[in-house]
Amino acid sequence: MPVPSLLVEPQIRAALAEDLGRVGDITTNATIDTEQRSKVVMAAREPGVVAGIECARIAFSLLDPTAIIEISAPDGSAVAPGDVVMTVTGQTRALLSAERVALNFVGHLSGVATATNSLVKAVAHTKARIVDTRKTLPGLRALEKAAVFSGGGVNHRFGLDDAVLIKDNHIAAAGSLTRAVEKAKAAVGHLVKIEVEVDTLEQLRELLATEKADAVLLDNMSPETLREAVELVDGRLTTEASGKVTIENVAAIAESGVDLISSGWITHSAKNLDLGLDYVS
Amino acid sequence: MPVPSLLVEPQIRAALAEDLGRVGDITTNATIDTEQRSKVVMAAREPGVVAGIECARIAFSLLDPTAIIEISAPDGSAVAPGDVVMTVTGQTRALLSAERVALNFVGHLSGVATATNSLVKAVAHTKARIVDTRKTLPGLRALEKAAVFSGGGVNHRFGLDDAVLIKDNHIAAAGSLTRAVEKAKAAVGHLVKIEVEVDTLEQLRELLATEKADAVLLDNMSPETLREAVELVDGRLTTEASGKVTIENVAAIAESGVDLISSGWITHSAKNLDLGLDYVS
Amino acid sequence: MPVPSLLVEPQIRAALAEDLGRVGDITTNATIDTEQRSKVVMAAREPGVVAGIECARIAFSLLDPTAIIEISAPDGSAVAPGDVVMTVTGQTRALLSAERVALNFVGHLSGVATATNSLVKAVAHTKARIVDTRKTLPGLRALEKAAVFSGGGVNHRFGLDDAVLIKDNHIAAAGSLTRAVEKAKAAVGHLVKIEVEVDTLEQLRELLATEKADAVLLDNMSPETLREAVELVDGRLTTEASGKVTIENVAAIAESGVDLISSGWITHSAKNLDLGLDYVS
Amino acid sequence: MPVPSLLVEPQIRAALAEDLGRVGDITTNATIDTEQRSKVVMAAREPGVVAGIECARIAFSLLDPTAIIEISAPDGSAVAPGDVVMTVTGQTRALLSAERVALNFVGHLSGVATATNSLVKAVAHTKARIVDTRKTLPGLRALEKAAVFSGGGVNHRFGLDDAVLIKDNHIAAAGSLTRAVEKAKAAVGHLVKIEVEVDTLEQLRELLATEKADAVLLDNMSPETLREAVELVDGRLTTEASGKVTIENVAAIAESGVDLISSGWITHSAKNLDLGLDYVS
Amino acid sequence: MPVPSLLVEPQIRAALAEDLGRVGDITTNATIDTEQRSKVVMAAREPGVVAGIECARIAFSLLDPTAIIEISAPDGSAVAPGDVVMTVTGQTRALLSAERVALNFVGHLSGVATATNSLVKAVAHTKARIVDTRKTLPGLRALEKAAVFSGGGVNHRFGLDDAVLIKDNHIAAAGSLTRAVEKAKAAVGHLVKIEVEVDTLEQLRELLATEKADAVLLDNMSPETLREAVELVDGRLTTEASGKVTIENVAAIAESGVDLISSGWITHSAKNLDLGLDYVS
Amino acid sequence: MPVPSLLVEPQIRAALAEDLGRVGDITTNATIDTEQRSKVVMAAREPGVVAGIECARIAFSLLDPTAIIEISAPDGSAVAPGDVVMTVTGQTRALLSAERVALNFVGHLSGVATATNSLVKAVAHTKARIVDTRKTLPGLRALEKAAVFSGGGVNHRFGLDDAVLIKDNHIAAAGSLTRAVEKAKAAVGHLVKIEVEVDTLEQLRELLATEKADAVLLDNMSPETLREAVELVDGRLTTEASGKVTIENVAAIAESGVDLISSGWITHSAKNLDLGLDYVS
Repeated sequence: MPVPSLLVEPQIRAALAEDLGRVGDITTNATIDTEQRSKVVMAAREPGVVAGIECARIAFSLLDPTAIIEISAPDGSAVAPGDVVMTVTGQTRALLSAERVALNFVGHLSGVATATNSLVKAVAHTKARIVDTRKTLPGLRALEKAAVFSGGGVNHRFGLDDAVLIKDNHIAAAGSLTRAVEKAKAAVGHLVKIEVEVDTLEQLRELLATEKADAVLLDNMSPETLREAVELVDGRLTTEASGKVTIENVAAIAESGVDLISSGWITHSAKNLDLGLDYVS
Repeated sequence: MPVPSLLVEPQIRAALAEDLGRVGDITTNATIDTEQRSKVVMAAREPGVVAGIECARIAFSLLDPTAIIEISAPDGSAVAPGDVVMTVTGQTRALLSAERVALNFVGHLSGVATATNSLVKAVAHTKARIVDTRKTLPGLRALEKAAVFSGGGVNHRFGLDDAVLIKDNHIAAAGSLTRAVEKAKAAVGHLVKIEVEVDTLEQLRELLATEKADAVLLDNMSPETLREAVELVDGRLTTEASGKVTIENVAAIAESGVDLISSGWITHSAKNLDLGLDYVS
Repeated sequence: MPVPSLLVEPQIRAALAEDLGRVGDITTNATIDTEQRSKVVMAAREPGVVAGIECARIAFSLLDPTAIIEISAPDGSAVAPGDVVMTVTGQTRALLSAERVALNFVGHLSGVATATNSLVKAVAHTKARIVDTRKTLPGLRALEKAAVFSGGGVNHRFGLDDAVLIKDNHIAAAGSLTRAVEKAKAAVGHLVKIEVEVDTLEQLRELLATEKADAVLLDNMSPETLREAVELVDGRLTTEASGKVTIENVAAIAESGVDLISSGWITHSAKNLDLGLDYVS
Repeated sequence: MPVPSLLVEPQIRAALAEDLGRVGDITTNATIDTEQRSKVVMAAREPGVVAGIECARIAFSLLDPTAIIEISAPDGSAVAPGDVVMTVTGQTRALLSAERVALNFVGHLSGVATATNSLVKAVAHTKARIVDTRKTLPGLRALEKAAVFSGGGVNHRFGLDDAVLIKDNHIAAAGSLTRAVEKAKAAVGHLVKIEVEVDTLEQLRELLATEKADAVLLDNMSPETLREAVELVDGRLTTEASGKVTIENVAAIAESGVDLISSGWITHSAKNLDLGLDYVS
Repeated sequence: MPVPSLLVEPQIRAALAEDLGRVGDITTNATIDTEQRSKVVMAAREPGVVAGIECARIAFSLLDPTAIIEISAPDGSAVAPGDVVMTVTGQTRALLSAERVALNFVGHLSGVATATNSLVKAVAHTKARIVDTRKTLPGLRALEKAAVFSGGGVNHRFGLDDAVLIKDNHIAAAGSLTRAVEKAKAAVGHLVKIEVEVDTLEQLRELLATEKADAVLLDNMSPETLREAVELVDGRLTTEASGKVTIENVAAIAESGVDLISSGWITHSAKNLDLGLDYVS
Repeated sequence: MPVPSLLVEPQIRAALAEDLGRVGDITTNATIDTEQRSKVVMAAREPGVVAGIECARIAFSLLDPTAIIEISAPDGSAVAPGDVVMTVTGQTRALLSAERVALNFVGHLSGVATATNSLVKAVAHTKARIVDTRKTLPGLRALEKAAVFSGGGVNHRFGLDDAVLIKDNHIAAAGSLTRAVEKAKAAVGHLVKIEVEVDTLEQLRELLATEKADAVLLDNMSPETLREAVELVDGRLTTEASGKVTIENVAAIAESGVDLISSGWITHSAKNLDLGLDYVS
């Protein structure tokens, strides 16, 4: 889901400040008159799914509060090369100074949406959904997760505090998987779900016996093992497959019957979507 | 060059807060005792060049100020799968809670260094150097540029304020390339350099005639045209080639004799370098 | 659970700055020598359960990093009048300047823990647990929820983003309870739980039929109706009673068999626990 | 007096962010359409004096800058159950998402105003005025003091820096009350007033002899002793009674002739005033 | 009085960040080895009174927490050319990178102290004290007022909120001086003093008749008129002379018998005190 | 060049908050009605060059967003006593509360512009330009540099990161001037210029031989030596004279033929330009 603009705005301000430095756009201020106005279009240069449009809107508005902005391709739209994403009419100086920040947000977030969407399409013949991870770029998590949503994926937990995810180290420290799950269940509120990572079917059986978890993360299992795991679970837990998911193997994983397939690649390694700003007048 | 720790620390704090949310790591706090201590190693899982080690060091130190941290592979080190990058001994809770943030920084920044280094190696037989752009991820520019440096690249300007870069829109607005260069030269201080983007050799000739620029950005030219441009310039300007640079074509571009080859790909589309945290004890 | 110190520290800094104003403690600085050192004890003046001790520790440490602090009654401890909570030895100026901020945190948060604990005790003969709400004082939510935990209560969701709670307005807008639940279920990730507020048993039946919720908030029902509701639910949902809960009626509510009883009073109207700082030497 | 909106706004932003978390109101966003608009009234559910209305106004405006807000009961108004305090017409999503924050501010601050007003009324037959203390909730001091003012009280110093208040520890450290007063007088500017806490009439006589103080805090004295103290002072100092002030004993204290009666209870233990948001359309 | 270090530290951090920019001291980092250590002395190059030493100490400590700092001339010390103010031993890089920020603080604040002291000396034969104003440089008020104190001056109010100062516009708006004073007295707490600006002896008589003010600001009066004013006041108010105070006329003003003479010049126009950093080893 | 308003606004907010303190302008709020509106003019009281007008505009706008502001003398305008700089019509309370902050910015920055302009005029018969330094007041660097520009000067580097300036300590640490220049040249990007400070003509010759610098800072040389230096350089480097520049000796320095003359005095010791706010109605 989209991040509230109240929360996004300070981040866009910070990104503009990062680019403006101490005195702003010295090239533009030296060569462009204050009064000059332009109309620009942000357009796709390659196919993909767009995301982060609100970031670009805020960037232009912050440098020119009177700019008129029309959005043609809202978050989640599939675009082809040449497709116009948004049109901005305003002070030329503001447009030029905000351009790179606007494109950096939209390019990266659309890259995340596009990468997500490529996996989503590859598993469309199954019930599996693509889900993100906490492997996000520092400072950009909420926006990247919104981009995953725009690309057709769903969101895993947003941080360390909004759900329990018990991994091998927690199990080792607690003494056993059962003990770790019990300790977690006793500590958290009634609206906090519990997911547990298992590496083997034995662990999965132990987990099922606790009757206290909501989901299981089946880590680095082959499609065959995943299929067995799904049968074992038999609907009692949400099943999530993870580990080395690629566009090549995602369909096979999905066909095992898991509910979710998680991918760090869609956020931490998404290729930037190529978009550009064209000056119409 | 590395970013001063005084400036990096607030960013690591913010990244930890982004992950900790309102109440922190509920899984770890429920399953791990306060007193438990562990020793972990951060190790590479694939070959590459590391960067961002100071970010990881700060992340662990912020959650456990008594942690003992030993760095085996400082920024710029080439690593092979299994190579240990750093060793941290401290409170198990702190290690688990800081793990993802530490890895997110090191994984992304090492990815940038590794991508940079792949281009650097491809042009090692020429005098060309790989240089970054302003196509960086919002909030991460200084760290990404430090990672480019670690990968053997050099840094372009850091923002809109520390050098002049005149592009087509500035030329159009000013009336002519010559006029734009003159306006810029008149406006900026004596320690600000001026670079101008040209698309054709005609534009390059006009630029050379001004005798006011320090560098030229030769945009989207074929290796042949670049070679002609370099001859025309004859050492009077720093020459930078840009546009659709890939690992496949970078050597041909470099062989044209340009001084610099700029790439947005090394920052905005760098693949995360796979590293992991292994619990030794 | 306790809030990570990394997150609490900025809040204590802000509270000290709020009290120090522009030039700090002019009374203390005018009357106490820089070198003078003292030993003080924070002691309870009335019975209760303490919370917020870490806030006091940080407050004293920020004004005197060399202060030696010993904690006798950690969060969750029951105290009687005269019981020492913590002992601080350090610069007298720092102790006097931090005193009020330290007491304001501990007094309020212990008040929350004590109020919570009074309800917890009143329902101790049942399986019901006391749970907090979002009716917290602005800026203090995480600390207040930690105090509820210290008082023996459990935590409801921390904000608008970490769980779904469908109320009458959402139902009205969506057209029906069933429709609202379905829309919510479709929108959120697999680790987000869904609770729905119902006013009548008819609504409860509609909710049960959706098979998509995790919990039900039974709003303003009499103990008799609650009992019927609990029977209807039959373990399929977590049951939460809310509305006008007082120390007088909480036992009767608990005896209906509900899992949770929520109270805004324990946070928004908790009476400060009286504690004082005594100068030992 | 009211806190300037320029200073209040960042605090409301922070409170909204505290509630919105990382992705905002997931329940509302899943169930309510973007275009839907509503009209709501904030109404009292019990009698009291309102305060903090500007906080609510800012909260709604921040989430919907186009919202139309009409205030019926400005700060300081006495309200009866059912009385409308403010009417807001705007986007339904914004109203639902801001509701809790708006009510948390108004409920708490009206609680402070109402508590203050109960003491004010109890001493209305005397010249005594009710005054607040520094026993406020961290981060909320200026707003709480404004609420005390709305309830008919007056404000004591706002922090450690805007007036001198010499207490027993300062006297002990300085060697004598006289010495402490002299040191303070010498150190502060001509617009800084000096108040001194005394426990006995002997101390009061010593204070009067210094002729350097502006006010005296008569701590924990019986009404009889207070009367003697007032006679001794004979108008030369502002007299303030403090210590264990309750609605039961405040009139007796006031009748001693003191100018001021201070109460920590009105801020640190004020019961939330019950108000609600009703959806009119 | 000195500003608490807790409040000063963020300001020094900000000043360092202002100078370090995005990547820090590129000259030093390119030419000085990481391990190199140096010993430097900050020394006066002209006579004056020093202030702001704590700012320099924090600046060096922030860039090298292990630096050893010895202060020879604390705030308020008179120095002659060549006098050592502080000695710092630490990493050469840190010393070079913090040097300018440290000197900028100490140079400006010592300039303020020195300017203040020149007026203080000129009136030393009278009872008049030199007092500052709100004509301070944005962001530096508390530090400048501490510097005035170090120079032997006393502090006026710190801002618009800690004392009342009624000027001509307030009087005009309120209808009369008497009315303005009465409104102010009724609105503020018992620890807030009231000062009133008067231009004529008639106004002064009106003010005295109110018996509600604590101080009078005698604006732009000749020494003769000031003398008359002082007689009229006869000790009932603190008297402050202001307007076009210079080193030439300050003695004559002081000899009129006023208590205070205020000067904006000592803060807004203080000449920087010349100090330098010498590298000893 | 002017600082972007996006970057200036937070600084004006902070300056207003510094003056408003916790509760704002208690004098104005007690004596002026909310509804009252006024028209004021900011006018010069002495001749000079104005700067910082945008700061004043933002200050008034932040306290009264509906204020109508007309600027008669934009940054860089020469003004005579009585000349109106700006006219503001708005709420009287807002005008009175913002007045001091607005004047503090404009007074100081116009002082910087005026000081700069006095040097600029003194060298107008030469080609020399006046340039600033990093000797600026903490927190005000960008605004002060913009004021230098308004006064007819040009800007040196903005901080430690945007250009190289090699001084004696760097040379000593690197072993030789040549070595320091080579290390710097190797470390920085192609858009970073290098300036080197020299004390003697021998050093200058060594520098010229490196052919790697862009500018030379000729420190504390007599006009005669400067003339020799300029001849030696013969246009190969930008020449900057520095050290003890005064209005008396600046012309002689300029006549030596240097390109730039730098002055710390124009920023760190600029006398405030006297301006006032007159209430027209």
